[in-house]
Amino acid sequence: MSVTVPRGFRAAGVAAGLKSSGAADVALVINDGPDAGVAGVFTANRVKAAPVLWSQQVVYGGVVRAVVLNSGGANACTGPAGFQDTHATAEHTAAAITAANARLIVGAGEVAVCSTGLIGERLPMDKLLPGVREAVRGLSRDGGPAAAEAIMTTDTRPKTTVAPGTGWSVGGMAKGAGMLAPAMATMLCVLTTDAVAGPDALDAALRAATRITFDRVDSDGCMSTNDTVLLLASGASGIEPTAEELTAAVTAACHDLARQLLADAEGATKEVAIEVVGAASEDDAVEVGRTVARNNLVKTALFGNDPNWGRILAAVGTTAAVFEPDGVDVAVNGVWVCRGGAAAEDRAKVDLTGRGVTVRIDLHAGADAATIWTNDLSHAYVHENSAYST
Amino acid sequence: MSVTVPRGFRAAGVAAGLKSSGAADVALVINDGPDAGVAGVFTANRVKAAPVLWSQQVVYGGVVRAVVLNSGGANACTGPAGFQDTHATAEHTAAAITAANARLIVGAGEVAVCSTGLIGERLPMDKLLPGVREAVRGLSRDGGPAAAEAIMTTDTRPKTTVAPGTGWSVGGMAKGAGMLAPAMATMLCVLTTDAVAGPDALDAALRAATRITFDRVDSDGCMSTNDTVLLLASGASGIEPTAEELTAAVTAACHDLARQLLADAEGATKEVAIEVVGAASEDDAVEVGRTVARNNLVKTALFGNDPNWGRILAAVGTTAAVFEPDGVDVAVNGVWVCRGGAAAEDRAKVDLTGRGVTVRIDLHAGADAATIWTNDLSHAYVHENSAYST
Repeated sequence: MSVTVPRGFRAAGVAAGLKSSGAADVALVINDGPDAGVAGVFTANRVKAAPVLWSQQVVYGGVVRAVVLNSGGANACTGPAGFQDTHATAEHTAAAITAANARLIVGAGEVAVCSTGLIGERLPMDKLLPGVREAVRGLSRDGGPAAAEAIMTTDTRPKTTVAPGTGWSVGGMAKGAGMLAPAMATMLCVLTTDAVAGPDALDAALRAATRITFDRVDSDGCMSTNDTVLLLASGASGIEPTAEELTAAVTAACHDLARQLLADAEGATKEVAIEVVGAASEDDAVEVGRTVARNNLVKTALFGNDPNWGRILAAVGTTAAVFEPDGVDVAVNGVWVCRGGAAAEDRAKVDLTGRGVTVRIDLHAGADAATIWTNDLSHAYVHENSAYST
Repeated sequence: MSVTVPRGFRAAGVAAGLKSSGAADVALVINDGPDAGVAGVFTANRVKAAPVLWSQQVVYGGVVRAVVLNSGGANACTGPAGFQDTHATAEHTAAAITAANARLIVGAGEVAVCSTGLIGERLPMDKLLPGVREAVRGLSRDGGPAAAEAIMTTDTRPKTTVAPGTGWSVGGMAKGAGMLAPAMATMLCVLTTDAVAGPDALDAALRAATRITFDRVDSDGCMSTNDTVLLLASGASGIEPTAEELTAAVTAACHDLARQLLADAEGATKEVAIEVVGAASEDDAVEVGRTVARNNLVKTALFGNDPNWGRILAAVGTTAAVFEPDGVDVAVNGVWVCRGGAAAEDRAKVDLTGRGVTVRIDLHAGADAATIWTNDLSHAYVHENSAYST
């Protein structure tokens, strides 16, 4: 699993001392080629962390030979000095890789940087830079799992994936457990492929994939300053898939990682799919799904195993989507507790004891549909996010 | 205090058995005149309860002689049958008042109806209608406090107010503790005045008042199906205030009730003012304030006494307001923990042990300002909204 399954990639994860726990906190992924194509999507938050501002420029250049990632600090809201820290990290990484690899000459402008952790504090560069050198020394074809561990923050387990093509594959790793409403998520994700694909093909596949996977996860409605998803292509398989094949594999990888993010969301006891059908447009379906997913009264009801369809309708009613209030049906785990905007089947029939919940909302306004994935709102969420500065 | 302070009004509150606790659950306010002017604002939720649909029409008619209110059931999402229940309640109330008062002949179209409680269930009319008759028998010039008690749901205390004019006054009562993001709030509010004022003057005063009071309370981001604020004028003082005088008194009454709603919000441990200044427009200030107020990571941090300005900036960054990310200052309880989008004064200086919190956000983008009032997100909120169907 992880980013080293496709050929042409090496990775490492090391402990540089950024985390007081002593856990691994610096990850490095490098692309040995022959190609070095890249695509990226980044947080839509206007308050962007220094590494996001840096990596956007790097991706715009079209060539990425390495991604250096750290947990233990987001380097967000750190001003010009924070940006210089990111720049120095890229330069240091490029120099260390070039020194260690006779066949690979890397410039700082080919190194993407990702950071995650507490907002508003400078990174301890005296720890980070030695960690980068150690990661370069530790690079290996088996390093994917170690890299995935090193980017964890409040995640309880690493998230990795692989989606096979024919003679090529897509590998991936991600982190993210809170501030998780990607548009993009405090999620970081690196995807790799040994397919032959140019920047435009990579960009098209990545945007198509994230639009219906990460962008439809809304765990807690809170958008991060650091969300980054990168897709690197080495071309090492020598095989050039069609656009459809590439998009399908990237989408499968993103979907699997999105599912893992949802399953590990801070304090959550439920994984909830809000399926909106019968919408006049896909945008309407997404708006209704996201609004219901963000409603704290719906989320607390689900935590309490309460199929409170009245709260769901009250949330739907705050949207601008096309629907008639007396024309909406709602099913919770398959039981149509609301038909035509009023009570229908007995809510006592709804079994909410399991971890998976499906809320299906039929707007009866058209043929479009979308699903938003979310979590409940639990005591553990409040505890985890009030007791610690993360 | 309450709605019977102004001359020309009587009220009552009785227990009709809608609440299993046996607490009072039917309130009645009548306007003995000589005038019967009214203005109203209602929930912006497109899923509107039957009593909202009814009362909007009644207010549109311009004359309201009575308001009948019940707790113990919202009569929302109850279909055509629920609307018939509201209609029957108005007819029954009108007939009972007319029978009991030789000098007051009331039609159903002059009776506003307000309901609050669980969404999606029919009201027990066999209990409600006898309760209405009992309320008519119990009407008195001292009935304001009893009426305020009868509209409570999860409220822990009744909310009443009085704002004096010169020779006239505004009285009021309100309920609301959850699903509290008025635009309008599950809040109900009846205001009374003995000023002489026509429907247009009442409407202008009420809209001006609610726009900067109830509409800027955002306890939990959840908009109700039943929010209703009514302003009734009896003219019994014989004094016609200026528009400014009337607006000032109505605003003072709304502000006091809004403050009481916030203080009694479900499970809250903090009353938080998000003051946005330096905005390019008032709309920008409201958008930023509301977005920060609705951010669960900000709300849990405040519950944990954590002046986490990074989460505040991350929330600001999701808005479309005019600002530069490196130009935003944030103070928490007077300590400027963030200047120019980066860390400034030591966050350890912030004292968050009290119940009142002020977050001041300076966008440095203009001269406009607005304040949104909200609450923290606590274990008790999760408990109260997951353990019970309310």
